[in-house]
Amino acid sequence: MVRFSRRYIFCASHRLHVDTLSEEQNRMAFGKCNNPHGHGHNYVLQVTVSGPVDPSTGMVLNMATLDAAVRNTVLDRFDHQNLNFDPLFAAQTSTTENLCREIYHLLVPVLQPVFLRSVRIEETENNFFEYSGTIPAVSAA
Amino acid sequence: MVRFSRRYIFCASHRLHVDTLSEEQNRMAFGKCNNPHGHGHNYVLQVTVSGPVDPSTGMVLNMATLDAAVRNTVLDRFDHQNLNFDPLFAAQTSTTENLCREIYHLLVPVLQPVFLRSVRIEETENNFFEYSGTIPAVSAA
Amino acid sequence: MVRFSRRYIFCASHRLHVDTLSEEQNRMAFGKCNNPHGHGHNYVLQVTVSGPVDPSTGMVLNMATLDAAVRNTVLDRFDHQNLNFDPLFAAQTSTTENLCREIYHLLVPVLQPVFLRSVRIEETENNFFEYSGTIPAVSAA
Amino acid sequence: MVRFSRRYIFCASHRLHVDTLSEEQNRMAFGKCNNPHGHGHNYVLQVTVSGPVDPSTGMVLNMATLDAAVRNTVLDRFDHQNLNFDPLFAAQTSTTENLCREIYHLLVPVLQPVFLRSVRIEETENNFFEYSGTIPAVSAA
Amino acid sequence: MVRFSRRYIFCASHRLHVDTLSEEQNRMAFGKCNNPHGHGHNYVLQVTVSGPVDPSTGMVLNMATLDAAVRNTVLDRFDHQNLNFDPLFAAQTSTTENLCREIYHLLVPVLQPVFLRSVRIEETENNFFEYSGTIPAVSAA
Amino acid sequence: MVRFSRRYIFCASHRLHVDTLSEEQNRMAFGKCNNPHGHGHNYVLQVTVSGPVDPSTGMVLNMATLDAAVRNTVLDRFDHQNLNFDPLFAAQTSTTENLCREIYHLLVPVLQPVFLRSVRIEETENNFFEYSGTIPAVSAA
Repeated sequence: MVRFSRRYIFCASHRLHVDTLSEEQNRMAFGKCNNPHGHGHNYVLQVTVSGPVDPSTGMVLNMATLDAAVRNTVLDRFDHQNLNFDPLFAAQTSTTENLCREIYHLLVPVLQPVFLRSVRIEETENNFFEYSGTIPAVSAA
Repeated sequence: MVRFSRRYIFCASHRLHVDTLSEEQNRMAFGKCNNPHGHGHNYVLQVTVSGPVDPSTGMVLNMATLDAAVRNTVLDRFDHQNLNFDPLFAAQTSTTENLCREIYHLLVPVLQPVFLRSVRIEETENNFFEYSGTIPAVSAA
Repeated sequence: MVRFSRRYIFCASHRLHVDTLSEEQNRMAFGKCNNPHGHGHNYVLQVTVSGPVDPSTGMVLNMATLDAAVRNTVLDRFDHQNLNFDPLFAAQTSTTENLCREIYHLLVPVLQPVFLRSVRIEETENNFFEYSGTIPAVSAA
Repeated sequence: MVRFSRRYIFCASHRLHVDTLSEEQNRMAFGKCNNPHGHGHNYVLQVTVSGPVDPSTGMVLNMATLDAAVRNTVLDRFDHQNLNFDPLFAAQTSTTENLCREIYHLLVPVLQPVFLRSVRIEETENNFFEYSGTIPAVSAA
Repeated sequence: MVRFSRRYIFCASHRLHVDTLSEEQNRMAFGKCNNPHGHGHNYVLQVTVSGPVDPSTGMVLNMATLDAAVRNTVLDRFDHQNLNFDPLFAAQTSTTENLCREIYHLLVPVLQPVFLRSVRIEETENNFFEYSGTIPAVSAA
Repeated sequence: MVRFSRRYIFCASHRLHVDTLSEEQNRMAFGKCNNPHGHGHNYVLQVTVSGPVDPSTGMVLNMATLDAAVRNTVLDRFDHQNLNFDPLFAAQTSTTENLCREIYHLLVPVLQPVFLRSVRIEETENNFFEYSGTIPAVSAA
């Protein structure tokens, strides 16, 4: 089993805010990420798939296939957008923890049967988040 | 003369849009940067001052002095904000070209008499902008 | 379970030397890291916690909470210091292997009940060390 | 158990091509990586070993020992070479998946009894590959 | 005047060799870069233009315009190719010094009337080359 | 004229302290850099030479020549050392401003007749210093 990771960037804005919390509670929970007009990031996305190496091509997954899946499913949806306007964040905050998990679940079906090992996002050069799927017993790498 | 550069990061959102242009003209000029709800970046700011080395301390400028000037003048103003809501961008687009020039002019008076050589901003890891002041004849480095 | 990692930097000096070894043995074991007056590094520390995402805030752990813990426990102690003068390195060498493990054990109690997954230190851009705690059965991520 | 990783760079050229496939099939599988005269990369190799910390030196493995092993076994063989001319790639494509696996198997015997946890290669700043050996039950880290 | 730089990557192979020199002289001049089957690099290209900021758009040059010029003139020509097969390097070695200068002269006519300030190439993370055009008196930045 | 820059790293310790200043004045001037037992950095040195491209080799300066000069003159002297013990810093503080200037003057004679354009040092990822020699009229680049 070899892991293949590829790195993508998308630029988006967001605001951390929970409607059911008071203004002060929001400030306590989110600090300046709660500023009213939002802010933004260059999100660095790292998608890792894992699997056996195809003996004829020497690849785990064709890079063009992965690129198309990520572009159609993730980049076209989030790049140069405000995350808070996406239906995925209508009922939950647009933290990078939630963003990781949502992107993971968006990619799993379009990458099948290739195993999506993890989705990692660098929100800034100092903050990284990673969500890993459950490793199926058969293809555990 | 030695140049001393220091690097700062601020996260902000913005939208490129000119009210006097049509929707199509805005799209032509700014592409996805014109998307209606904005997007954002981790702006990497590099401030470069230049001057003689103080023989007693061995420094061009005390780092704490520079940090305080940049924090009070730039970071507290733009970090975790939407640039378009700042008065500086009421009458001009919030491109990084304009942002560089505005930050340069905000910093010059608070750093005097130290010479501010340039303000450089990385909008993403692939786009950099730099604005340099006119070098006074006497202290040309 | 989501992993949240945050990156910190501290600048310190040290010297690798074992009193019970001869001068030549020290030189064999540590090379130029044994030079008598010490040397130093910009240590890049990466702290990774792992846990469920709080459904109300969308976070694994508040960043301000993590920052305070790391600042009080690690940065205030080691930044701009000589590691060899710290009691932790009175009876063991100040290698980055040992530093990783000590920082891990310093952080566990102040981060509880959050699970500290690993402490990783980049000694230089070419040398990385990582210490991972035992994953408790219940919260295995 | 502590993990110790060290980073090396080698510059090599290669071409992805399978003789038993047609010209069009090669183009489909490998895209521009199939261009006839080859291309090249700065391969960034990260070797990770894992083990207990020697209580007398505070190290997992002496850096000079690791460097000599990697230089003799990997760098002297692949740096500033065309991978396709190496016997290892006579019967398989010189993809970075295969390169990872081959380097792993070249290093295991020369590093024994130290456990080689993984070999990771960055082909470009956007593509990473990693091969991990099976973790022996006794020394599982 | 503001400088706008944009970063591109292309992967290519080459060999440093001068036909009129002896085998030993080639080895003396180029070391392992003279190895017979070539090697390669991820060339990181940084193109810097300089000019006044258009008051209506706030830009020095539309990024899409620059990208198209660089793609058509440079990337489509050199990416995933062997530089030695390009007519530009029929009569001169494919050093990065020469590559910088050639790319500069390829880009000047397609970017006019925008001023191309410099072309910088990182051959590896440790070697950088830069070629700057003569600054015309009128638009000196 | 082409500029050729090469990047080196050395790890050293130092302490900022002026004997003729009081303890409080030292603290005011240097902050935690004045801590009594010193601290350290991974100094990233960038040496830039500038000159015409040799038409036979296509190079500004042979890389092996530059490496030998920097190793003998700078790296062997400062790597894994305490800067304060070097005679160069007996009568001046070991700030990176002073270090840049001293390295510049150490390198000029050993690189002649090649023009040493500048010496740049990154003390940390956030602090950069650069010293440039006077450009001789004849070979101005």
